[in-house]
Amino acid sequence: MRLSTFSDYSLRVLMYLGVQDDRLVTIAEIAAVHDISKAHLMKVVHQLGLNGHIETVRGKGGGIRLARPPREIVVGSVIRQSESDFALAECFAANATCRIQGACCLPAILNEALNAMFLVLDGYTLADLLQRPRGLVPAAACALAVCSAEGLHD
Amino acid sequence: MRLSTFSDYSLRVLMYLGVQDDRLVTIAEIAAVHDISKAHLMKVVHQLGLNGHIETVRGKGGGIRLARPPREIVVGSVIRQSESDFALAECFAANATCRIQGACCLPAILNEALNAMFLVLDGYTLADLLQRPRGLVPAAACALAVCSAEGLHD
Repeated sequence: MRLSTFSDYSLRVLMYLGVQDDRLVTIAEIAAVHDISKAHLMKVVHQLGLNGHIETVRGKGGGIRLARPPREIVVGSVIRQSESDFALAECFAANATCRIQGACCLPAILNEALNAMFLVLDGYTLADLLQRPRGLVPAAACALAVCSAEGLHD
Repeated sequence: MRLSTFSDYSLRVLMYLGVQDDRLVTIAEIAAVHDISKAHLMKVVHQLGLNGHIETVRGKGGGIRLARPPREIVVGSVIRQSESDFALAECFAANATCRIQGACCLPAILNEALNAMFLVLDGYTLADLLQRPRGLVPAAACALAVCSAEGLHD
């Protein structure tokens, strides 16, 4: 049982931006620091933008930054938005084939468990994830940070 | 985010056995009723036996049945035993590559959320899943139920 890579990367992007003091950051920079796919990150950044968590400044010297203070970005909301679904079991899906669906009480119990999980995640914000800010900017980022931003999609 | 098929099938097997009143059931019967792989079910049944939830009677006329009353089989325990891991994010794994692990507070928050989820699942037993027993034996099972058991691995 695990979160999608999309959720994982969404949180990594937000944490990275959360310690930049409004500095504009390129996707290339985050991809290099985390050693993850730039193509995948572009989709993540696009979605974070649609959800109002980050904003994009286009053109030369452009990049991305948080669109709101870290304390206003709720971890539970980010995960809800970035997971494709919460079908804990096959019977949650629209095309479920389980022969006992309708009679089985499992979906109600799994939903209750899922709600309990999100009650915890909704109690934390990005600010809570930034408690140890120094470690959230890996050493590899130091060299990158001094480079001028080269545009969002470099 | 979803449970493994292994967990899903484990619960289906237990629910099926839970409404059989100690009748010995073959894996072939459960596979036919649920239209799922017999090979996969055999692994599931083996694990449920190792965990003390079901017992096997070998030989002609043999089969499987619950080893304890449904009210003693805790849903949370079954899922804990049947999931291969609870690495909600990549950083939970032994070979994690995330560059900010150690500084990041996410694992602690995800663990707290996971604990809240299992607190709910530990509050339910197989007996709770059998609240609507008639629907838990699909119509297709009626014909199968009158056949004599033909051994565990038929």
